[in-house]
Amino acid sequence: MTSHDAAAPSPTRDPWQLPDVSELVVGVLGGTGDQGRGLAYRLARAGQRVIIGSRVAERAETAAAELGHGVRGLDNAGCARESDVVIIAVPWEGHHRTVAALTGELAGKLVVDCVNPLGFDKRGAYPIVPEEGSAAEQAAALLPDSRVVAAFHHLSAVLLQDPTLEKIETDVMVLGDNRADCETVQALAGRIPGMRGVFAGRLRNAHQVEALVANLISINRRYRAHAGIRLTDI
Amino acid sequence: MTSHDAAAPSPTRDPWQLPDVSELVVGVLGGTGDQGRGLAYRLARAGQRVIIGSRVAERAETAAAELGHGVRGLDNAGCARESDVVIIAVPWEGHHRTVAALTGELAGKLVVDCVNPLGFDKRGAYPIVPEEGSAAEQAAALLPDSRVVAAFHHLSAVLLQDPTLEKIETDVMVLGDNRADCETVQALAGRIPGMRGVFAGRLRNAHQVEALVANLISINRRYRAHAGIRLTDI
Repeated sequence: MTSHDAAAPSPTRDPWQLPDVSELVVGVLGGTGDQGRGLAYRLARAGQRVIIGSRVAERAETAAAELGHGVRGLDNAGCARESDVVIIAVPWEGHHRTVAALTGELAGKLVVDCVNPLGFDKRGAYPIVPEEGSAAEQAAALLPDSRVVAAFHHLSAVLLQDPTLEKIETDVMVLGDNRADCETVQALAGRIPGMRGVFAGRLRNAHQVEALVANLISINRRYRAHAGIRLTDI
Repeated sequence: MTSHDAAAPSPTRDPWQLPDVSELVVGVLGGTGDQGRGLAYRLARAGQRVIIGSRVAERAETAAAELGHGVRGLDNAGCARESDVVIIAVPWEGHHRTVAALTGELAGKLVVDCVNPLGFDKRGAYPIVPEEGSAAEQAAALLPDSRVVAAFHHLSAVLLQDPTLEKIETDVMVLGDNRADCETVQALAGRIPGMRGVFAGRLRNAHQVEALVANLISINRRYRAHAGIRLTDI
């Protein structure tokens, strides 16, 4: 229960006043996977310029052609180099390796980590705790010259990729230590119809947001759903 | 992102088919605190028989009289003894001590832990990781003869206690290893207008649900809100 909600200090700025991000090029590393593909599709459909990256350029090109909406495909290094904002959507197992290999290309960029470190056994999903605290903090540790934000953890790849859905009614929790960077990512999330980007704390509070996907998986199994999260009262 | 939502096995029973809990007596340990008081108020207002417990019986009696709706006040041991379902709503700092002192009274009972282990520093709230994994797992370890479920973590004490609100539009994530016990708690949550009790995984996945309150606190500060959670697509 939240006992500390009564003593909120006055914000000095409207938290819904977000920057124009329509001109930013968004790269999606791991863009040929289900999540990366879904996110690339939604952002491109909303009018964003999107590049998907893959270890093998040809696979990225093929996936990009399938997605349409002007999506381009490059190898991961090219994707990182040519993008303003780079979303890391690789499987957790490849997270450290992929990020560590791109420190140069990602320097100076805004990097958005949406990876959920999870393990699976016969009882279902459970969170893995990275040594750095979270996948996002691992990325931040590997990328001292980038700005790292965590977001887009709770989106269903199935819903993202369903072309019959005009809107995806859900919120995107955005975490980071720099307000302007968070607002850029919040604005990107807000480009997708039905979504809001909501600031949800500092990067040190990313673990539980990543780990909550284990609970969404349990919910999906019990209710045969593609559960997402809406924050109430905001 | 949730990549595992496509392969949901068929549930054999309607997950919204929940038991009648209207005759259960609900105890709230820590019922004189903001959260306990708010939850006791909402459950009693919905027609549940409620007993609040406090270390000092007189304080519980005074708080009970203020709440009305037939709420009774007892010391913690009496509250535990006379209730069918016992909600632990004490501050994290008193969690281990309170639970350990009531192992006898809580034996055979359904115990619902809603405690969020958090620390605070000048950068805000952050999760504490109990040795047992979560507050709920700590309770389960201390109470081998009780059945422990985790729930009611994300409710705003301010909204719970506001008598002008007829409904509280939010979901209650319910975690536990026994389906019948979870369903009892889901049904209790569902007694409060606007709320749904949603099964959200096993007890080993309680930590991130407890810890997410740190994020809700950040959201509350940024948006001047009393944020809660709604699960979408279910």
